[in-house]
Amino acid sequence: MNLTLKDGSCLEVQQGITALDAAKQISEGLARAALCAKVDGVLVDLNTKLDKDCSLEIITFKDDEGKEVYRHTTAHILAQAVKNIYPDAKLAIGPAIRNGFYYDFDFPTPITNADFDLIEKEMTAIIKADFPIERQVVSKKQALAKMRGFDESYKVQLIQDLPDSETITLYQQGNFIDLCRGPHLPSTGYVKNFKLTQLAGAYWKGDEKNKMLTRIYGTSFDKKADLTQYLEQIEEAKKRDHNKLGRELGIFMTEEKIGQGLPLLMPKGAKLFQILQRFVEDEEERRGYQLTRTPSFAKSDLYKISGHWDHYRDKMFVLGDEEKDSEVFALRPMTCPFQYMIYRNGLKSYRDLPIRYNETSPLFRKEASGEMHGLIRVRQFHLSDGHIICTPEQLEEEFKGCFDLSCYFLRCLGMFDDVYFRFSRYDPNDKDKYIYAPEKWDHAEALMKKILDDLNIKYIEEIGEAAFYGPKLDIQATNVFGKEDTIMTIQIDMFLSENFDMWYVNAAGEKQHPYIIHRGAFGCYERMMAMLIEKYAGAFPVWMSPVQVKILSLTDRTAQKANETADKLRRLGIRCEVDNRNEKIGYKIREAAKEKVPYMLVIGDKEAEKGEVAVRSRKIGDIGTMTLEAFISKITEEIDKKVLD
Amino acid sequence: MNLTLKDGSCLEVQQGITALDAAKQISEGLARAALCAKVDGVLVDLNTKLDKDCSLEIITFKDDEGKEVYRHTTAHILAQAVKNIYPDAKLAIGPAIRNGFYYDFDFPTPITNADFDLIEKEMTAIIKADFPIERQVVSKKQALAKMRGFDESYKVQLIQDLPDSETITLYQQGNFIDLCRGPHLPSTGYVKNFKLTQLAGAYWKGDEKNKMLTRIYGTSFDKKADLTQYLEQIEEAKKRDHNKLGRELGIFMTEEKIGQGLPLLMPKGAKLFQILQRFVEDEEERRGYQLTRTPSFAKSDLYKISGHWDHYRDKMFVLGDEEKDSEVFALRPMTCPFQYMIYRNGLKSYRDLPIRYNETSPLFRKEASGEMHGLIRVRQFHLSDGHIICTPEQLEEEFKGCFDLSCYFLRCLGMFDDVYFRFSRYDPNDKDKYIYAPEKWDHAEALMKKILDDLNIKYIEEIGEAAFYGPKLDIQATNVFGKEDTIMTIQIDMFLSENFDMWYVNAAGEKQHPYIIHRGAFGCYERMMAMLIEKYAGAFPVWMSPVQVKILSLTDRTAQKANETADKLRRLGIRCEVDNRNEKIGYKIREAAKEKVPYMLVIGDKEAEKGEVAVRSRKIGDIGTMTLEAFISKITEEIDKKVLD
Repeated sequence: MNLTLKDGSCLEVQQGITALDAAKQISEGLARAALCAKVDGVLVDLNTKLDKDCSLEIITFKDDEGKEVYRHTTAHILAQAVKNIYPDAKLAIGPAIRNGFYYDFDFPTPITNADFDLIEKEMTAIIKADFPIERQVVSKKQALAKMRGFDESYKVQLIQDLPDSETITLYQQGNFIDLCRGPHLPSTGYVKNFKLTQLAGAYWKGDEKNKMLTRIYGTSFDKKADLTQYLEQIEEAKKRDHNKLGRELGIFMTEEKIGQGLPLLMPKGAKLFQILQRFVEDEEERRGYQLTRTPSFAKSDLYKISGHWDHYRDKMFVLGDEEKDSEVFALRPMTCPFQYMIYRNGLKSYRDLPIRYNETSPLFRKEASGEMHGLIRVRQFHLSDGHIICTPEQLEEEFKGCFDLSCYFLRCLGMFDDVYFRFSRYDPNDKDKYIYAPEKWDHAEALMKKILDDLNIKYIEEIGEAAFYGPKLDIQATNVFGKEDTIMTIQIDMFLSENFDMWYVNAAGEKQHPYIIHRGAFGCYERMMAMLIEKYAGAFPVWMSPVQVKILSLTDRTAQKANETADKLRRLGIRCEVDNRNEKIGYKIREAAKEKVPYMLVIGDKEAEKGEVAVRSRKIGDIGTMTLEAFISKITEEIDKKVLD
Repeated sequence: MNLTLKDGSCLEVQQGITALDAAKQISEGLARAALCAKVDGVLVDLNTKLDKDCSLEIITFKDDEGKEVYRHTTAHILAQAVKNIYPDAKLAIGPAIRNGFYYDFDFPTPITNADFDLIEKEMTAIIKADFPIERQVVSKKQALAKMRGFDESYKVQLIQDLPDSETITLYQQGNFIDLCRGPHLPSTGYVKNFKLTQLAGAYWKGDEKNKMLTRIYGTSFDKKADLTQYLEQIEEAKKRDHNKLGRELGIFMTEEKIGQGLPLLMPKGAKLFQILQRFVEDEEERRGYQLTRTPSFAKSDLYKISGHWDHYRDKMFVLGDEEKDSEVFALRPMTCPFQYMIYRNGLKSYRDLPIRYNETSPLFRKEASGEMHGLIRVRQFHLSDGHIICTPEQLEEEFKGCFDLSCYFLRCLGMFDDVYFRFSRYDPNDKDKYIYAPEKWDHAEALMKKILDDLNIKYIEEIGEAAFYGPKLDIQATNVFGKEDTIMTIQIDMFLSENFDMWYVNAAGEKQHPYIIHRGAFGCYERMMAMLIEKYAGAFPVWMSPVQVKILSLTDRTAQKANETADKLRRLGIRCEVDNRNEKIGYKIREAAKEKVPYMLVIGDKEAEKGEVAVRSRKIGDIGTMTLEAFISKITEEIDKKVLD
């Protein structure tokens, strides 16, 4: 029997050999590192038997899939430990996530972080016992019987939701059996270094109407040094928590009397917002977008057409009472129907398309009190919202244009390497959440898949994350706590141009519905600001710093020169402040350093006389004395090129 | 007896002479033009007897007071005519306004514009009859008896609202008697040229809870040519009605399904808004303002402190029900309390003051359906809102700074000559509308009066137009229909820093409440856009034009050059569009002219070769061929200097 290896070479092996044995034949080192395998492109357990010619790739911790399987198995070890200690706890779900894993439990009495020690000890014992992990293929009926026997009501629900024909697999390690698609490591002893990191609440199936469960987060690594480094990174990152640092830096505040989830941007935050907004709107204008500015609320009539009234009403702030009032309004959760109304103003021809509308759009979401977090989970936010209305032939190019724009923004912000891409698909079983039209969904998802594959980017797929009107490409990032969020999104919409009676006249003179792309190319300003605060710990790149230069007079004699210098810089659009206080220069420098201003210019008598400035950079300290002109050309270049420091 | 005249000279006259007779002694011409007189600074009827030494000024139609008295008498003639024709109509009030007058009536059956002819004929008859107009001083009791006798229930209410001690005057002309402070013209024959212009609804006392009355607008002039010219101007202006022209130019639209009073700014309107917003925010930044960005709604708790919940609740959109919901929110009608919360973040010292906050603030007002009008009467709008928090010593300078900023904006917009200033005072009798604290009001109004007098500007005073928390300087303008609106406002607030527990530490180390100035230095963006559309009929000055240059290729061969030229201009921040359509150049020019683009650049083979452009100006047509560089320096200078054309 022949195996085709990753490098293209061929290996002859005995029929029925396991993937692990094949790895041993390639090299002992590879076999030691092996975690699972890919057979003909499908990820499988290492002890899977190979019974015919196939391609084989051995997966180690270096591979993303390797990390995922490693951590998924760690999640099972966590679940086993919890069941050992708290036999009445019920199991929900426990996937691997980026940089770790979690498991959701329904505990009869709440646990706290103080219980982590006990759970970790039990996990260590399970690892030491090195239980083999065995895959069992069962029928739906058998799986149900098993989980009912264990009284695992959440697992029973999960199995009931599966189609009758589905192959169901269980994984067993020691006394512990879990419903799981797999694959897993060969035995619990494979896990070397792990740590439980966090406790959080999470609704069963992510739906706030369901019970709130307890989510335990953790992570694991094959090398101890990597775990240590990661945990240190997390600790370091937590200091950057925008909800703490953003307040300390005077970027935003909240106020109980105004309400939760309604942050107030203070002068530095409002300035940062203004800088980003101008940057985004200018770039979009260059790319042929047309700006709109539409109302923050509308009558329910509008949302009845858009589908929001049926699919999204719980999340909207409603003004008025349908039974009592002649007009009922709602604060808008999205800009779509407003821009559609602008499109409808005047007959459009195929020659007018594509039309690209953008808006820095205030949006509202009725989140429950207590779920708010800084600038990330809020009741009002601003989206760089936009819609492209185009012919079917233009869809692909326009989608790619949106993707290119998002990538441009990410690069300017220095965030390109921090994100990953998710193809968010609909869930055919969730009839409440999605407009019912399977054929249209299949068409749109196939179309999007083709575009994504053409773009040649790496992406994951996720069922049940689509918008109610179509599939999305989501650009995902995680914050300092490892919480994942969508920061940008590009969506294909197959329903609303019909619902909104939107038309264009095609080249043949016939009326036709256009295609629509919804896009948040820069995403939500508040969320992006939170990300930037955490990434740069407040020390923003020069181009986006609310204050780019602080000018410090050395003595009272040079105060006038400091003001003149500031005027000169301001006329060139460089944002600066002057510190002419009667304080020691060392004190002034320390204060400016605390504010993380990119450049300080110190002006003493000598500098004033020569028309020079003594420059201190935030990054490398004193960089010497130069003419003001030299400094101006240095900083102007950094700003123009959007240099990240 | 001696009279001191306007030019400072002295005139000896017989005691007991009337003002009119005194005018005759000065000159027959003056006497013929005389409409009323000012005796010791008080405006009086011409037949007032002068019984002691005094200053005397004869008022003619050239004076604002002369126009006012002339038109006020015309309003009485209108009322007399209406009563003659419709004896059951009830009289409400009938003042002179800028450029005219109105009178509010309660008609038993509605009238239409078609009735104007009949009324005007009756007015002409009254003028021809030349009834003397006589002033009668009566007691409150007598006045009540008289008006009850006439069954004039609105007049009865007005008299009842007056203090018992007030001197009450009635004016009689022929069979018609009206309650009126006066003064008036000597007889109805003095009115030469008048015209009824418009019919509108108006609530009794301006309160929507009261009955809707019928308002008849009209105007009158001493010279026929001036009346004709004015009426022509009005007709011309109506063509500029922003509610018509703004839609035709693609600046805004409305949509029934979104709701009344919720205009959507289309690309050209949104661009104009962006241009104005950047202009305002940049200028404010230069003047030391700090930008904020605060939420569009807040819990009722906040408005309870600010007083809005008690004084303004009817005008607010409320979210939720106080009896059912744990949190009730309201869309904000003003930014004040939000910026105050930012002030309160961190202890402030006198050294930190003045603090100037500005925000381009979305605000909401619950207007009844049916009262909406274009961009002027709306449910959501954006105010260049700001608050200056300062020490008592800084108040005067800061107030003047606000005034200077508003004047700067008005000049840049070309609107300085279109406005007048109004000192809006509180009404001590309106206890519902104003916070009760007579001493504080007197103090603040005296302070503001001093500042206004120091500014050396001409202003009128109006009782009952103050904000509920303090007096205002309002900058007023009238639209094409003669409707007056406040476009900018500067207010002194004596209450809210106490209510909001706002402090600063003064030089003596003691905690003290600061003073606050509320200001809308640029006013409401939507309203200003409406004003600008009407003023410029869509042909905006170059600096604010959404499209500044349109580049027209003469043939397909020069399309590439047109695109390159556009790129060059765009890199310099000049807004341009390219018309490379395969159409005749004449057609392209006509189309661009319709869009009122300030400059067109036509590029043919010859121009392309030489790096030149053929320039057409919107104002003067073809201005010849020049190098692109020459055109750039020309337009750049116009933009930088904000040249108005």
